[in-house]
Amino acid sequence: MRIAIVGAGAIGTYYGAKLAAGGNDVCFLVRTGFETVKENGLHITGPDEDIRVPQVNAYRSTNEIGKCDLVVVAIKTTSNDLLAELLPPLIGDRTTLLTLQNGLGSEELLAGLFGTERVMGGLCFICLRRSAPGVVHRYDYGHINIGEHGRPPRDRTRTFANEFQKCGIKCGVVDDLMLERWRKLVWNIPFNGLTILAGGIDTAAILSDPDLDEAAVQLMHEVIDGANRCGFQLESSAVEEQMKRTRTMGQYKPSTLVDFENGKPLEIEAIWGEPLRRALAAGAGMPRLQQMYAALKSLDRLEQAQ
Amino acid sequence: MRIAIVGAGAIGTYYGAKLAAGGNDVCFLVRTGFETVKENGLHITGPDEDIRVPQVNAYRSTNEIGKCDLVVVAIKTTSNDLLAELLPPLIGDRTTLLTLQNGLGSEELLAGLFGTERVMGGLCFICLRRSAPGVVHRYDYGHINIGEHGRPPRDRTRTFANEFQKCGIKCGVVDDLMLERWRKLVWNIPFNGLTILAGGIDTAAILSDPDLDEAAVQLMHEVIDGANRCGFQLESSAVEEQMKRTRTMGQYKPSTLVDFENGKPLEIEAIWGEPLRRALAAGAGMPRLQQMYAALKSLDRLEQAQ
Repeated sequence: MRIAIVGAGAIGTYYGAKLAAGGNDVCFLVRTGFETVKENGLHITGPDEDIRVPQVNAYRSTNEIGKCDLVVVAIKTTSNDLLAELLPPLIGDRTTLLTLQNGLGSEELLAGLFGTERVMGGLCFICLRRSAPGVVHRYDYGHINIGEHGRPPRDRTRTFANEFQKCGIKCGVVDDLMLERWRKLVWNIPFNGLTILAGGIDTAAILSDPDLDEAAVQLMHEVIDGANRCGFQLESSAVEEQMKRTRTMGQYKPSTLVDFENGKPLEIEAIWGEPLRRALAAGAGMPRLQQMYAALKSLDRLEQAQ
Repeated sequence: MRIAIVGAGAIGTYYGAKLAAGGNDVCFLVRTGFETVKENGLHITGPDEDIRVPQVNAYRSTNEIGKCDLVVVAIKTTSNDLLAELLPPLIGDRTTLLTLQNGLGSEELLAGLFGTERVMGGLCFICLRRSAPGVVHRYDYGHINIGEHGRPPRDRTRTFANEFQKCGIKCGVVDDLMLERWRKLVWNIPFNGLTILAGGIDTAAILSDPDLDEAAVQLMHEVIDGANRCGFQLESSAVEEQMKRTRTMGQYKPSTLVDFENGKPLEIEAIWGEPLRRALAAGAGMPRLQQMYAALKSLDRLEQAQ
């Protein structure tokens, strides 16, 4: 299968390397660290995992890559305005677009640009750190769940999932992609946000403060209410499940906090802004999310202005 | 009138200097900058105002001061655990205690320690900056409103207000002190909090961001609801009044933000924690205040741990 990986950050590098090591013709669009990746290849490490891709099909532009069967979109959503220009050279008649990006809004953007028929999305449950171009360490988890945009799974959905599985990527197929996106936001909205707003602390520090723990729990309930109003039914028992899972994570820093500490732009609109707007439009009251969104947007703006 | 000023920060220095210049026997408890105050005296400046008190009755302990007619409590609420030890030497049979401190809880603390009968409170509407020990500049406003703790005004309330007026301090008498404390919190809770959480920005920057402006407005409504549940009736029209007043303030930094920038402890419990606890106990839902309190408490703890 000919696969383009658009964006060689941690997510793109990790899954792209696995797909390449599994025998696919994988082409990476690499914007920063191109020479390093060309020279050193890719190196993936993790629990029980040590994969090298010495010869990387790395490209500086999508024109050089040309048409692919599958285009994996793995840039930060903060760069989504580039997609209208980046993707067309990769798209043939039967090309599928799979966004592995965070939050809400990317499938709709891709559908508007390239037709809803092509668009799939995936959710990555993985803790990664990219230490250098092409070098990624996986700390925990690793599975992804993929689905169709606005429709149930079809043959190709399962074909891609099988290919991923063959390459050692745990990959599930979800019936309702948007429902699963909301379910993931039930965790990401409070924990990615509070770890920043509370001064740059990890998930264990959130849980050890009764008031921050309460803030996380209540925000989870608020997000579930927002999802339900938008037509995606999540049970409130998801809160206790996710809090329990968080207690097993130890001193975890969500990727947004790591980005913030490194002065990188935050995915404010995908993770907080778009869910807020959709929930408000559906009639939900979202006081905690509104306040968090406003504060994070300001922090991000100040940091990017420096 | 023999008056003790407990705490020679901006508030204590400003009002104490005015009361001294007006002819009262004012004794200052000065903990930092004692030598400077003794040597240079006090200097108050402001629009149409330039007052010097060359000879200051400054003391290092309340034992040296002895009994007074009026004790003005002007330390930060974060030091309130010192009051049980600090105040007794100042208190005679007919001594009145007047706390000019922020937020909720100080009157109750003083009443528990020294009897409810003695306790009065005041609200300061003033923008001050202390540039050195004894040196305070007033930027704006200046009036205070005083009242009795848990009862309507009585003769002494008006006597003190008259004395303040005679010394050039605009001083009103309020019928319901706790109602007025809540009214002030309608502004302090959102603006003192959001200016910190949004990254250290002034009130004009809050107003210029539609999402932060909305966060302030909605938090004001939440505080009003909390006050009403606690039995203190505030109209929701207070929101528009206070937002309008904020628009005239220009690029104002609330004192809490200035403290935060200077690494000083924040009055987390008086301004956010105590109102939250009282409103929740009265059955109000306070989602915005709960989240803000939790985040600010964490920021303050991190800063004080440095």
